Amino acid sequence: MKRTAILLLHCPDQTGIITEISRFITDNQGNIVYLDQYVDTVENHFFMRIEFELDNFLIPEEKILDYLNTMYGQRYDMKISIHFTDEKPRMAIFVSKMNHCLYDLLARYKAGELDVEIPCIVSNHEDLRYVAEQFQIPYYVWSIKKDHSNKNEVEESEIELMRREKIDFIVLARYMQILSDKLISSYPHNIINIHHSFLPAFVGAKPYNQAYERGVKIVGATSHYVTEELDAGPIIEQDVTRISHKDTPQSISMKGRDLEKIVLSRAVKKHIEWKILTYSNKTVVFA
Amino acid sequence: MKRTAILLLHCPDQTGIITEISRFITDNQGNIVYLDQYVDTVENHFFMRIEFELDNFLIPEEKILDYLNTMYGQRYDMKISIHFTDEKPRMAIFVSKMNHCLYDLLARYKAGELDVEIPCIVSNHEDLRYVAEQFQIPYYVWSIKKDHSNKNEVEESEIELMRREKIDFIVLARYMQILSDKLISSYPHNIINIHHSFLPAFVGAKPYNQAYERGVKIVGATSHYVTEELDAGPIIEQDVTRISHKDTPQSISMKGRDLEKIVLSRAVKKHIEWKILTYSNKTVVFA
Amino acid sequence: MKRTAILLLHCPDQTGIITEISRFITDNQGNIVYLDQYVDTVENHFFMRIEFELDNFLIPEEKILDYLNTMYGQRYDMKISIHFTDEKPRMAIFVSKMNHCLYDLLARYKAGELDVEIPCIVSNHEDLRYVAEQFQIPYYVWSIKKDHSNKNEVEESEIELMRREKIDFIVLARYMQILSDKLISSYPHNIINIHHSFLPAFVGAKPYNQAYERGVKIVGATSHYVTEELDAGPIIEQDVTRISHKDTPQSISMKGRDLEKIVLSRAVKKHIEWKILTYSNKTVVFA
Amino acid sequence: MKRTAILLLHCPDQTGIITEISRFITDNQGNIVYLDQYVDTVENHFFMRIEFELDNFLIPEEKILDYLNTMYGQRYDMKISIHFTDEKPRMAIFVSKMNHCLYDLLARYKAGELDVEIPCIVSNHEDLRYVAEQFQIPYYVWSIKKDHSNKNEVEESEIELMRREKIDFIVLARYMQILSDKLISSYPHNIINIHHSFLPAFVGAKPYNQAYERGVKIVGATSHYVTEELDAGPIIEQDVTRISHKDTPQSISMKGRDLEKIVLSRAVKKHIEWKILTYSNKTVVFA
Repeated sequence: MKRTAILLLHCPDQTGIITEISRFITDNQGNIVYLDQYVDTVENHFFMRIEFELDNFLIPEEKILDYLNTMYGQRYDMKISIHFTDEKPRMAIFVSKMNHCLYDLLARYKAGELDVEIPCIVSNHEDLRYVAEQFQIPYYVWSIKKDHSNKNEVEESEIELMRREKIDFIVLARYMQILSDKLISSYPHNIINIHHSFLPAFVGAKPYNQAYERGVKIVGATSHYVTEELDAGPIIEQDVTRISHKDTPQSISMKGRDLEKIVLSRAVKKHIEWKILTYSNKTVVFA
Repeated sequence: MKRTAILLLHCPDQTGIITEISRFITDNQGNIVYLDQYVDTVENHFFMRIEFELDNFLIPEEKILDYLNTMYGQRYDMKISIHFTDEKPRMAIFVSKMNHCLYDLLARYKAGELDVEIPCIVSNHEDLRYVAEQFQIPYYVWSIKKDHSNKNEVEESEIELMRREKIDFIVLARYMQILSDKLISSYPHNIINIHHSFLPAFVGAKPYNQAYERGVKIVGATSHYVTEELDAGPIIEQDVTRISHKDTPQSISMKGRDLEKIVLSRAVKKHIEWKILTYSNKTVVFA
Repeated sequence: MKRTAILLLHCPDQTGIITEISRFITDNQGNIVYLDQYVDTVENHFFMRIEFELDNFLIPEEKILDYLNTMYGQRYDMKISIHFTDEKPRMAIFVSKMNHCLYDLLARYKAGELDVEIPCIVSNHEDLRYVAEQFQIPYYVWSIKKDHSNKNEVEESEIELMRREKIDFIVLARYMQILSDKLISSYPHNIINIHHSFLPAFVGAKPYNQAYERGVKIVGATSHYVTEELDAGPIIEQDVTRISHKDTPQSISMKGRDLEKIVLSRAVKKHIEWKILTYSNKTVVFA
Repeated sequence: MKRTAILLLHCPDQTGIITEISRFITDNQGNIVYLDQYVDTVENHFFMRIEFELDNFLIPEEKILDYLNTMYGQRYDMKISIHFTDEKPRMAIFVSKMNHCLYDLLARYKAGELDVEIPCIVSNHEDLRYVAEQFQIPYYVWSIKKDHSNKNEVEESEIELMRREKIDFIVLARYMQILSDKLISSYPHNIINIHHSFLPAFVGAKPYNQAYERGVKIVGATSHYVTEELDAGPIIEQDVTRISHKDTPQSISMKGRDLEKIVLSRAVKKHIEWKILTYSNKTVVFA
């Protein structure tokens, strides 16, 4: 695989953007290997992801974003980001007591499915230290008091750890604490949560119990970026599984765990591949 | 196919009910061809569906229910109903302007999939008369004024028609009017609605638009029995389909129509086969 | 909606194609509204679909393809086709005795989901004339003798009808005859069939019975372009539904009919939108 | 949970079997907590699973099967087996080099989802010893020579281990060796395999490559009991996932791994719960 750069950009829709950007790349000796584009015809907004080979690219890597911003940023009111495929994103995992999402992410990591570094696992409980040890990843515990009196302090420590470890994004793998706005705003649209319901149904606590009470015939799981409003951030991926009157809250929860793992890992994979753009509290997820 | 009777019953769970009932049938020379049973271990409630051949049954058909009620009704606090497979249920269809669910039901009826009589189609608009005529089914229109001033009157006429045509149950095939409590209570758990969302998400009007606004990745459809609270009755069947950021409210609506047809027809089929028991605002749907 | 042209093209992969083509369009005042592209990295082959607005396009419509062929055809060994969104494709439907796919296609057509003309329905049986009449579409019957002695003759008549009615593509909506190579080669990759199995499982006759015999837990349907080898052409779309040990060949067939309708209609829709490219007996189906 | 016994039985269909058996249990003071029954109307064969509480049961546990065989075995030509829910089945896992199914089974085991003992993991390679060690389960390796010259010997050792560890059933978690008839016949319908295709499509080696070559739009996985004919035993469970032209054999394989894990674990769970009956090379899987 040759080294490539990935451009993600969006702006109000206008004639000629695709040509403009693709010409910029080709004129500078970049070879486009992937282009996906989408126009939201309701909001009249343009989104694009371009991946190109850097081998003979005439502009030094560290200046590409500057060039693009100068040439197109203001003219098109365009938001642009750039990523390089040989730089592995650094991912922190937050967990509480349930091990299934953690095991799943680490097994995929071990199998080479997730092209990331995982410098740390953070928890408010000691329970899953054995999993971290199985995979030889540092495990940090800051327990939060029932009255939440030390929550600020704990989050300060967590944020400091994130900085020290140069964390790019955080995955909440069934982390049962609500994050403060401060932590959220340190990683805007870079904290991925898995909520164990088909959002917007069953927001908040114990969604499987809520599903049982309502007598639904299908339950779901939703991965989304965390925003300040609980369970209301941009949805990345959802999936569902069929249940019946025979299911209890316990069996629903067991079936749901399989969903959670898959839905979370798909979201993480798309995030790592820089295939997600967010806009108006929604996501554009390229194929 | 031999003539059979179908018993549907439920009661607080107790030891020996299955044996008791199956013995009753066998002792009276009925041959059990199907028995499905379920215990809700949370509510401690027992549900059963038994189908048996009537050929040599010693008790006259019209007296079976009396016998059962006398022998078990009070003793077990048991609710019992009986149906005979050679009596086709009579189904009324209510529609407004969209033709897809109506076409689907009538095509299945014509193909022999739905073992019912359809004596009438009722609407608040003339629009779908041509479909009724294609299938030679009487089409009745009572238009409801925008201020709903004649709604009571219209429902009176509808209820009268239902009585005259000996309607057993009503299917709302995208009927865009909210029924009055009077009509609902005339057909308790015998009015099937199709709601075009994955309930309880997106209750009420324009669910596909709501889904678009929220940016969900999957949309659904739900068939349920109509109760007095809007979109809150016992859910019979649900299904979902995947959408993406590319979908507009229009394309979601188009994809949704396929779901609506299938989810509604499955519910109607289960109802006709007497495979649904309702309890605590939920359904037990036997396979 | 503005008038647009759709380019479909494929060629061995090379640097700069996207830029080249998009520059051609933009330089000639076309506004690209959609671009999807794909590189088969195994075969090293490039595929693209571009849609652009024609309003101010400098090249006369009837000459665009010539220009493209001249400029790029030989240079890139590129196969190019062009379609205009205001020209409705003309579709013929072939049927035998089962009405479900026919009803489904016609109901979608009536509801405005399928942007085509349907000048004729062709059959080897009289059975479905009533459906054609319901929708006021001419219905042609040529019955084929059991010994197939008049098959050539029948196909001659059919081909003549296709020519007279300027048919662009044919849909076999559960047409139970094997087409001759002559008819197939008259419409290369323009005859869409629905096979009622999850191909390549259960090729040939009575796939639902084969599925029952093998005891599978899921059955499927497959829409594909017809080629000379039976049930072996490029697959356009597939879908599946769950069955269980309780299903008989009859009930599998009933469940399968819902699949067939959906899978066939999705394929027809993709075909009409010119979103399908074929290559190496496979399809590239753009989203 | 009270201690229960589970009866699995099947026989040619006849009048009165349900009553007969349920009366036997009730008369002996057993409380039936679950009864599921099914008649194959094509083969005219009856299947039943009954679970009953043993608390006050009048017949000693070790004699129940004798009683049943004596009373009904010959009379109805009935095959009967009995299981007790407090006896955990002992499961051996066979693996080669891929870790995903093994990790998945062990994580579920650790999470309490699988009510079994796992006394040993067997392999023909050292590769997955680290996984076994993470979960502290003995790991046995017998490597098989390329010319298979020591295959008999290896299987003898394996069979001896199975006997020593009192193994009830074997799970082939992507074990890449074909078992000999001798090993298969030691565990008739007690060896569960996961095949990574939607059987009967793509029997044999490299099914994901076969799927890629054929251009299918959906791939699947199948768990089945191993019989002497390769990939042809009774199917327990199947599931599928959608792919597109964008998928390579590698990405199909990655998506497939998620399927394999889920399909295999569902089959193991059903087996452990004694919910599977086999007949005519098919399974009856109770809900």
